[in-house]
Amino acid sequence: MIRIRFLGTAAARPTVSRNVSAIAVQREGESFLWDCGEGTQRQIMRFGTGFSFAHIFITHAHADHFLGLPGLLRTMSLQGREEGMSIYGPAGTEPVLRAAVRLGVERLGFPVEVKGLAPGERVDFGDWAVHAFRADHGVASLGYALVEEARPGRFDVETARKLGIPEGPLFGRLHRGEAIEVDGRVVAPDEVVGPPRRGRKVVYTGDTRPTAEAIVMSMRADLLIHEATFGSGEEKRARETRHATAAEAASVAARAKVRDLVLTHLSARYAEAPARLEKEACAVFPGARVARDGLEVEIGYRE
Amino acid sequence: MIRIRFLGTAAARPTVSRNVSAIAVQREGESFLWDCGEGTQRQIMRFGTGFSFAHIFITHAHADHFLGLPGLLRTMSLQGREEGMSIYGPAGTEPVLRAAVRLGVERLGFPVEVKGLAPGERVDFGDWAVHAFRADHGVASLGYALVEEARPGRFDVETARKLGIPEGPLFGRLHRGEAIEVDGRVVAPDEVVGPPRRGRKVVYTGDTRPTAEAIVMSMRADLLIHEATFGSGEEKRARETRHATAAEAASVAARAKVRDLVLTHLSARYAEAPARLEKEACAVFPGARVARDGLEVEIGYRE
Repeated sequence: MIRIRFLGTAAARPTVSRNVSAIAVQREGESFLWDCGEGTQRQIMRFGTGFSFAHIFITHAHADHFLGLPGLLRTMSLQGREEGMSIYGPAGTEPVLRAAVRLGVERLGFPVEVKGLAPGERVDFGDWAVHAFRADHGVASLGYALVEEARPGRFDVETARKLGIPEGPLFGRLHRGEAIEVDGRVVAPDEVVGPPRRGRKVVYTGDTRPTAEAIVMSMRADLLIHEATFGSGEEKRARETRHATAAEAASVAARAKVRDLVLTHLSARYAEAPARLEKEACAVFPGARVARDGLEVEIGYRE
Repeated sequence: MIRIRFLGTAAARPTVSRNVSAIAVQREGESFLWDCGEGTQRQIMRFGTGFSFAHIFITHAHADHFLGLPGLLRTMSLQGREEGMSIYGPAGTEPVLRAAVRLGVERLGFPVEVKGLAPGERVDFGDWAVHAFRADHGVASLGYALVEEARPGRFDVETARKLGIPEGPLFGRLHRGEAIEVDGRVVAPDEVVGPPRRGRKVVYTGDTRPTAEAIVMSMRADLLIHEATFGSGEEKRARETRHATAAEAASVAARAKVRDLVLTHLSARYAEAPARLEKEACAVFPGARVARDGLEVEIGYRE
C-alpha cells in the first residue's frame, strides 16, 4: 500500500487549522517526506506517521517549505537516531538547505547529506524511484513523482497446470520471465503470464503554475497532488506569484487523465471554507478533493 | 493588567500537547515575546495573542528557543507589517539570530534589528523595562525580568479636602510629588500622598540551573516563571545538562519570596502527566503550578 498523509496544507503561512507544507509518503514500509515546513515535526507526532524515514525532498527554498528541517533533525538526534538522512532540493538551493540543517543545532548524532537535483534526475529505491521535474514558480523549483516499475503480469495457474507444469519453483521462473522446459516441451512465459502490470504513480507539484511537465509526469497517475493557492477571480494574482488556481490544477489533472486529484497549499482565505475551491476544481475534474491536515489517501494496486 | 500567555511549555522538542518555548507578555496594551521556538506563529494564532508586538527577547540560541523567528517574521511581512522589530539575545548570539532572521526569507517589508545584551543590561520602555540577567546553561544565556518603576502612593482625598485644597490641578501636582501653597500655607506631598507603591515584576529564567542571580532578580516578584525540565531522581542529569528540577525551581521561588511560581520547559516525559512535578514543587513552594500551552496568568496591581 502507498499511504499519503497530508501534514500541512496551507500556503505561505499557517492557520489555526492548517500547517504549512509537508506530506508524508509511506510505501510498503519505506517512507519519506515531500517538503518540511515549520512545525512539521509536531504534525508528524500529531498524525503518528513516525520518524523512521531517511529522505526528505524539498520542492523549493521558500520558508514555508523547509523551515521545519532544523527542528526535525534536532529532535531525531535527541531520539538517538544514528541512521543518515538525505535531503534533496533543486540544484542551487544546497547552501540555504545546509544553513537550515545547521541552524541552532550544535551537533547531530547522525550524518546529513544535502543534494541538489536537476529536473529529470531521479533517486532510485530499487523497484521504485522519486523523479524530479521542473516546476514554474519563479525560483528554482521541482515537483516530485513516486514512480514504481511495472510488475510482472498475472500468473495463470490454471493454464500452467493444464500445460503439466508442476507447482513450485518453475512457476516462479516463468513469472520472472524465464522460459522453462516440461516433458521436453519449452513453455514461454507469455503462455502463462499476462502483460506487465503498470506500477503506481503519485505526483506532487510543489508550488507552480500549471505546466506541460506536470501533465507529462502525471499521465495516468494514480494520484496527482497539485497546489491550488487561489480560486477563480484570482487568475492574475496566480500568474504573478507563479501559483495555480483550483481550476488550473484540475485542468492539469484532466489532461493527464489521472485517477485522483487532491488540491493542497491553500491560501489562508480558503483555509476554513475550502468548498469553493473544490467546486471549481470538480467542474473541470469531477471527484477532485481539497486536502485537510491529517487527510490520508491510500493507493493500492489497480491491476 | 499584565497578561502572561504560555505559547509553548515543552523542553527541547514539542509533544502533541506542548509546543517548544515561547511566552507572550502583554502590559497595558504593549506586548513582547520571551523566546520564539519553532511553531510559535501558529501558537499565536491559536491563542489569539496577536502579532502587534515589536520586541522579542531570546534567552539563548538553542534551536527550541528561536527557530520560530524566520517563519514568524515572514508571516508578519505577508500581513503587510511595516513597523520595525527588535530581537534581543545574549551578547555573542547575534550571528546565529541574524542567520535565523534571514533564513528562507527573500525580503521583509520592515526593518529587523538584532541586538546582543549582557547580563545587567536592560531595555527601557518608559516606566517599565526588561532587565537581562545571567542564566547558567552552559552556553551564553539570559533570564529576563519585566520590572515596573514604583508608582506614586495613594492620594488621600479626604485629608486634602480637610487641608482646604481645592479639587483640580493642585491634586495632580501633589500626587506627582510637588509641594503647593494654599491660603499662604505650604502643603508637602507626603501630607496627602502615601508611600510609593511598588511596581510589578515578572521574571522568566529561560533554561538554567538555579542561580543566585535568579533569586536576587526575583526578590518579591509577582510571578516567577522558572524552567523545570526534570523531576526528582534526575538531579544529576539536571546538573549535567544545566537545567533545573521542579524542587530546585521552587527553592528559588521560596528564597526570593515570590508571590506566584509557574513551572515551564518540561521534559517530554512529563508532558502528559505534569502532576508529579507540581507536587514536588509544592512541597517546597506551596501553590506552585505547572504551565500548559495556552495558560494565561493575569497580574494586577497589588498596592
